[in-house]
Amino acid sequence: MVQLHPRLAQDGLEVATLTFCRLLLMNDSRHPWLILVPTREGLRDLDELTPEEMASVWADIRLASRFLRGHFHPDKLNIASLGNLVPQLHIHVIARFIDDPAWPHPVWGRNPPLPYPPQEAEKLLKSLQDYLRDAIPARHE
Amino acid sequence: MVQLHPRLAQDGLEVATLTFCRLLLMNDSRHPWLILVPTREGLRDLDELTPEEMASVWADIRLASRFLRGHFHPDKLNIASLGNLVPQLHIHVIARFIDDPAWPHPVWGRNPPLPYPPQEAEKLLKSLQDYLRDAIPARHE
Repeated sequence: MVQLHPRLAQDGLEVATLTFCRLLLMNDSRHPWLILVPTREGLRDLDELTPEEMASVWADIRLASRFLRGHFHPDKLNIASLGNLVPQLHIHVIARFIDDPAWPHPVWGRNPPLPYPPQEAEKLLKSLQDYLRDAIPARHE
Repeated sequence: MVQLHPRLAQDGLEVATLTFCRLLLMNDSRHPWLILVPTREGLRDLDELTPEEMASVWADIRLASRFLRGHFHPDKLNIASLGNLVPQLHIHVIARFIDDPAWPHPVWGRNPPLPYPPQEAEKLLKSLQDYLRDAIPARHE
């Protein structure tokens, strides 16, 4: 299991390991925001992935995107690999709304995160796990 | 040929059509910044791509990334599909440096673009075209 950069471990709630990535829920109630962390050690940028790894990352981006679409019905998805502050390769998958607090700007670095109330985080993590159980049943049988 | 959103046509200098995307050089001398625009009409988000299209987009991201790495030796690549202002699906591939004017923040919406002096744009477009001719020779024979 790949180690998480301390900042990712601090800001994210662990959900599951998907095709190739660890899936985290960003603990920020302002934006439905998932983070994918590829499980090979030492990665910094997307172009370091092999084509096979990239196909797996895409599969995971798709899983994350579909959950956000189905659960939140966003106006737009933002998908990005930046890593200027956290060098460990990670991909943001964020549901955006035309009335969200950062719209139309990107969400990064605008406001400090506003953690979910514990019950709300628990409910959202449960929804994510239910979705994943249906979306990738073979991994849970 | 897919039509470009007016904002993309205004901000980008056309370079070539790659595997599946039109390649634009963002006319902003503050950041080495390429934009990929998938050539299927009507796309808004990455999760609307078929797996085959996604593989082609990835091939194009890799081409763009490798040019930026080889030509500029950046500290980090930023790769993102946002589209909050320009709904047509497009992917940013940006070379970042720890001393660039936006570091460590994302580049979007921080400062107005600073167009290249014409000679510099011409030189960079030529380097890109030379790179692409070597990287995908079959398309140019």
